[in-house]
Amino acid sequence: MIALLGASGYIGSAFAEALEERGWEFVALSRAQLDYTRFPVLLKFLRENKPAFLINAAGFAGKPNVDACEAARSETLEGNVLLPVTIAHACEITGTPWGHVSSGCIYNGAKVLRDGQWEIETDLGGSAFRKLRREHRENIRGFDETDAPNFSFTRPPCSFYSGSKALAEEALGQVGRCYIWRVRMPFDEHDNRRNYLTKLQRYSKLYESTNSISHRGDFVRACLSLWDRRGPFGIYNMTNPGDVTTSEVVQMIQRVLQPERKFEFFSGDKDFYGSGVQAMRSNCILEVGKLLGTGIRMRPVTEALADSLKHWPRKPALQAA
Amino acid sequence: MIALLGASGYIGSAFAEALEERGWEFVALSRAQLDYTRFPVLLKFLRENKPAFLINAAGFAGKPNVDACEAARSETLEGNVLLPVTIAHACEITGTPWGHVSSGCIYNGAKVLRDGQWEIETDLGGSAFRKLRREHRENIRGFDETDAPNFSFTRPPCSFYSGSKALAEEALGQVGRCYIWRVRMPFDEHDNRRNYLTKLQRYSKLYESTNSISHRGDFVRACLSLWDRRGPFGIYNMTNPGDVTTSEVVQMIQRVLQPERKFEFFSGDKDFYGSGVQAMRSNCILEVGKLLGTGIRMRPVTEALADSLKHWPRKPALQAA
Repeated sequence: MIALLGASGYIGSAFAEALEERGWEFVALSRAQLDYTRFPVLLKFLRENKPAFLINAAGFAGKPNVDACEAARSETLEGNVLLPVTIAHACEITGTPWGHVSSGCIYNGAKVLRDGQWEIETDLGGSAFRKLRREHRENIRGFDETDAPNFSFTRPPCSFYSGSKALAEEALGQVGRCYIWRVRMPFDEHDNRRNYLTKLQRYSKLYESTNSISHRGDFVRACLSLWDRRGPFGIYNMTNPGDVTTSEVVQMIQRVLQPERKFEFFSGDKDFYGSGVQAMRSNCILEVGKLLGTGIRMRPVTEALADSLKHWPRKPALQAA
Repeated sequence: MIALLGASGYIGSAFAEALEERGWEFVALSRAQLDYTRFPVLLKFLRENKPAFLINAAGFAGKPNVDACEAARSETLEGNVLLPVTIAHACEITGTPWGHVSSGCIYNGAKVLRDGQWEIETDLGGSAFRKLRREHRENIRGFDETDAPNFSFTRPPCSFYSGSKALAEEALGQVGRCYIWRVRMPFDEHDNRRNYLTKLQRYSKLYESTNSISHRGDFVRACLSLWDRRGPFGIYNMTNPGDVTTSEVVQMIQRVLQPERKFEFFSGDKDFYGSGVQAMRSNCILEVGKLLGTGIRMRPVTEALADSLKHWPRKPALQAA
């Protein structure tokens, strides 16, 4: 039996669906019925029910967005740091292997080759980077799992959300049989305030950058596959291979969904951060070679995006006259 | 045997001294020799050595002062939240009773009776409060252990330090056999950058307010006594009974030590917070009836202050001509 925490959340509900698809027996723990944030309660559950694996998809990502984490520090730290640490300790005691949904948003930027040196470039929406990406893609690399997070409390500035996720990774690094699965800006064909494609369509003005992002279903399926084939425990970047710019995704939306609205972009960081945004945003490229090296396939990001848009819910067609 | 964490720190070293005075066998755990921040390591130590009691005097209070916690968020959260939570879990598993040094700086202000209502007053240096304190002391009350912290991440604004201490108390509240000992602005006769009396003498300009504060030796002795007589586990305010204003302490310093310097005060909050201070400061009055109710004596704050100043190290006397 698999224990699933956070089954009602955006990522957790996708885990529940993927577990059902595979026909794997699982129990979705609900805090209302069993307060798993309390160490003795969780420990008792693990000892009595002996799940073969535990998935932590619970966490606090802020409502309506990550900005809310700047003010809701208690909830952010409780959900993103204290809960995973509590789980780690209870799993350690009971020998329960488990997986934790982390975030790729603990990095900012990408590595670029300049004058024979790999340097960090953080302006992934600027013209210099866009030109490099167009002409010398081979001179751009994402962060891999051996790179220390550079958008964290240890490497400020960062958002409070990102800081909390990076701190949890540090704390979990001390403990044994655990997967740390890094998701980023999840999307799929289901309209939802947490869906990156929904966000792009709802925001009145967009921020141009370049990102590695995760198809929600691909992500949870890859997580389960990693456990299924008993891949080595540790940290995994789990975005779809490749990267996309905001405007590339917008062009796909325009082409496929043909929305009536126009899309407007901020002219740059000053314009964006002057618009009422509270927390610094992470924009980054991640390498997924470690995951792919285990034999698990993730669709290229453009394929996953095209597929999501193809299945995007259409407005009811106009009735024929 | 008693296990002591943080023995090299300002409060920890006083615990070590008080334990020696009583002739209680103890082991001062050093992180260099045994990384007790790692759950499996601490757990193994507890299982093998079975201490009768554990004292956590480790933590991160910022260097040179609490302002440093605003930037050093990782260290602050690791030292003040993750460590105590890790200890709590290891002690829960092994049934080890323990005590945690918390802080009274998770409150701001005092309760004042106005028009038949107890209200929170946070300006404890203002003329209205000073007048009330002079004329109607009975209309002022401190916070007791049943009051929720009001200078915390849940009740912002607060300093990052205070937020972390309050968050730890919340997290520990979930767990069993633990004392939470709240110290405040510790002082004694030993010149030290953490000593409140040293701070007052070194700061170029002072902030007028009213506070409950803890004599360092009185504090650790009271902590040990609480365990010695098996007082009920839970939270205890552990300041010396009473409260003092900054200027009252300065007058005592002037009277006893007769320093050559003049003491200058900020004209108010605007002046103080405009002077380069980064974190909001907690100033508060605490009730200690719960502690005194266990039969443990703490000297009145003015007595403890007078005694500390009486034993303050004198500059070498001028040689007779």
